[in-house]
Amino acid sequence: MNYRFYGADTVELAKKYGTPLYVMSEDFIVERCREIHESFLKKYENTYAVFAGKAFCTKEMCRILKREGLGLDVVSGGELYTALSVGFPADKIIFHGNNKTLSELNMAVESGVGRIVVDHDMELDIIQKIAEEAKIDASVLLRIAPGVDPHTHRYMVTGQADSKFGIPNKDAVLRHTVQKALSFNNIELKGFHFHVGSQLLDNASHLKSVDVLCTLFDKLNQWFDYWPHEINIGGGYGIKYTHEDQPEQLNAFISPIMHKITEFSEKSGKKRPAVIIEPGRWIVGEAGITLYTIGYIKRIPDIRTYVSVDGGMPDNPRPSLYQARYEAVIANKYGDPLTEKVTIAGRCCESGDVLIWDIEIPEPEPGDILAVKATGAYNYSMANNYNKLPFPPIVMLKKGKDRLIVERQTYEQLVSREL
Amino acid sequence: MNYRFYGADTVELAKKYGTPLYVMSEDFIVERCREIHESFLKKYENTYAVFAGKAFCTKEMCRILKREGLGLDVVSGGELYTALSVGFPADKIIFHGNNKTLSELNMAVESGVGRIVVDHDMELDIIQKIAEEAKIDASVLLRIAPGVDPHTHRYMVTGQADSKFGIPNKDAVLRHTVQKALSFNNIELKGFHFHVGSQLLDNASHLKSVDVLCTLFDKLNQWFDYWPHEINIGGGYGIKYTHEDQPEQLNAFISPIMHKITEFSEKSGKKRPAVIIEPGRWIVGEAGITLYTIGYIKRIPDIRTYVSVDGGMPDNPRPSLYQARYEAVIANKYGDPLTEKVTIAGRCCESGDVLIWDIEIPEPEPGDILAVKATGAYNYSMANNYNKLPFPPIVMLKKGKDRLIVERQTYEQLVSREL
Repeated sequence: MNYRFYGADTVELAKKYGTPLYVMSEDFIVERCREIHESFLKKYENTYAVFAGKAFCTKEMCRILKREGLGLDVVSGGELYTALSVGFPADKIIFHGNNKTLSELNMAVESGVGRIVVDHDMELDIIQKIAEEAKIDASVLLRIAPGVDPHTHRYMVTGQADSKFGIPNKDAVLRHTVQKALSFNNIELKGFHFHVGSQLLDNASHLKSVDVLCTLFDKLNQWFDYWPHEINIGGGYGIKYTHEDQPEQLNAFISPIMHKITEFSEKSGKKRPAVIIEPGRWIVGEAGITLYTIGYIKRIPDIRTYVSVDGGMPDNPRPSLYQARYEAVIANKYGDPLTEKVTIAGRCCESGDVLIWDIEIPEPEPGDILAVKATGAYNYSMANNYNKLPFPPIVMLKKGKDRLIVERQTYEQLVSREL
Repeated sequence: MNYRFYGADTVELAKKYGTPLYVMSEDFIVERCREIHESFLKKYENTYAVFAGKAFCTKEMCRILKREGLGLDVVSGGELYTALSVGFPADKIIFHGNNKTLSELNMAVESGVGRIVVDHDMELDIIQKIAEEAKIDASVLLRIAPGVDPHTHRYMVTGQADSKFGIPNKDAVLRHTVQKALSFNNIELKGFHFHVGSQLLDNASHLKSVDVLCTLFDKLNQWFDYWPHEINIGGGYGIKYTHEDQPEQLNAFISPIMHKITEFSEKSGKKRPAVIIEPGRWIVGEAGITLYTIGYIKRIPDIRTYVSVDGGMPDNPRPSLYQARYEAVIANKYGDPLTEKVTIAGRCCESGDVLIWDIEIPEPEPGDILAVKATGAYNYSMANNYNKLPFPPIVMLKKGKDRLIVERQTYEQLVSREL
């Protein structure tokens, strides 16, 4: 039996487009966007959701988000360019980054992005200067490092005090920065942002961070008689990479956070700020799979069986970078008994290029198609040309129909910038 | 004072080409090639040296290698394409890989590469079929997993028994595979290859692996009356990333290996096989630096000072992937007293994007140029577009003169394959 993914026969897709191949489901993405509408945007007034582009930023993804009425968070001129190139509304874009360049800030202000999330007080000076020259007002949020340390891979922890991100949560620093933002004529301080980490399976760190921001809001009220219009609680909502991951439902994740913010605002006698969420992985992670062709099977007596595929760390750097775990099936033997424990090796000349350690599959043979699941986030966006392997294409599925949204890189394109 | 790199003012280079910028020294590369000639190729007869392309494979690098009389080791169709596109002689190319695809093996045989290093006995069947149809003979080496475990980062260990690389060092497996190679009409078994690991600061693992191969040669002599023409001892020669790295000189590294192989051959009453080495990092690693512009400086009281630059893990994934350590200088303050201990952060929206922890530099200011050293290997070749950051350009220096060898990627090129 062939493995079907959102109505498509994955073995046929591999035949049609070749491997390695990224396959994404628009149905899944749309479903997740609608869940955001149902359990967040419609449930609570004065709320916004933006997709964290760094998880998967392509032209077609921007078109889907536009149709589904979500905003977009970008972290570079390249992501902003991609969004603008397909007519994504600039006012629904939030621009992030711990070290935006001058040309990027120019691009952001001039294109009229909805919010710039300021990471450093010096950034305020630059934005003010650009906005003044352009004779417009720039709406900003300040990113705060709440000093909260969630339990996730250390590369995915972003809210701790020892962080390159955000304005340190120290009264003197905060007071100085907010005062500066309020004093600038062409800057409108809309509120505050935090992002505590990624692939979080519960909301404990978000709740702690909301406490930190509420305490800050009270102080700002005293210091400057200022009350924020918006609080942006970032993303980080975990997904199911393997059967062992049991993430909370979006509703269960966010409800207690909304409750806390609402309660705090009421207690302070103030209007609840608008709440913005920034899911990325949660929208696209499980929407994607990667198809590979199995090549050599190396049985090392008494040690291990390596099953090599025609891709690996260049199309999915997450196992080597984060020791991330994935599950996979042999697409053309779906449902067959799992008779062997093997290790799925990539094809790079690098021992670290192993996609999955110790997975049970039916007896593998050269030419079999392997489908690795939950590769929709941070695969295409982190892909590289190591070993001069061309970037794989992406096929998007909608109601069982496939369409190419990113072409496979040719050898010619691979060396096109080399003189 | 400005930091000069092989006769060029790095601050001027940053101004001329922008940042981030890879800078490579052809003088250094040529010097290393000549050291290989002097202390290996001319010193011992019947020896060959090939550059391990995966460290830095560009058109211009292939041209330099061709001029300097070195061969090239490639690990993919993309690398082979790059070499052939500038007229690199195919017979001086060695094709490696644990999972070469059918189309790559076709390309390798048809273009007439000098050697294919076979990683699996099934590969022999494929090569025989292709070579027979093309009516040519294919010269192969067999890669052996010697079962030697050097002390280096676990991703860089490749010669251990539990490895996706090479033919397991078990009599039954080896006998079967060699017999097959010898029986095929269109395959010429030239000898054997091993590669034990990377960035090795001594030759202990190489020497152990030579012992393993010598034992194998004795057995092959008994089993098949076969004596290898060639032994390829791979690469892995360490370089100086930081002042703490004290790699052996190439001569000191290789002499004991040559001595061992020669002594063994004499003892066996046989001709010493040709010896091939495959340095990659050793030729280009210290030939490169990366120039960045410093942006925000974040002083977190009592915790740490983060100095952000306009590049990071997309142009140099090695710190996040291997916890690799680098040294750097502020190029426009070279020689100034080192007054601060800081951490150099990349610009990606990712906590793991830190280039250097705890480095001493003069007081940093926005706009300063930071030069990170020894980035010539596995930087350009592992670079990615994470956060949709464009690939930086590469400038090659020769006798103090700079020339562009790889252009900076434009936003347009960045999305050119997206439909």
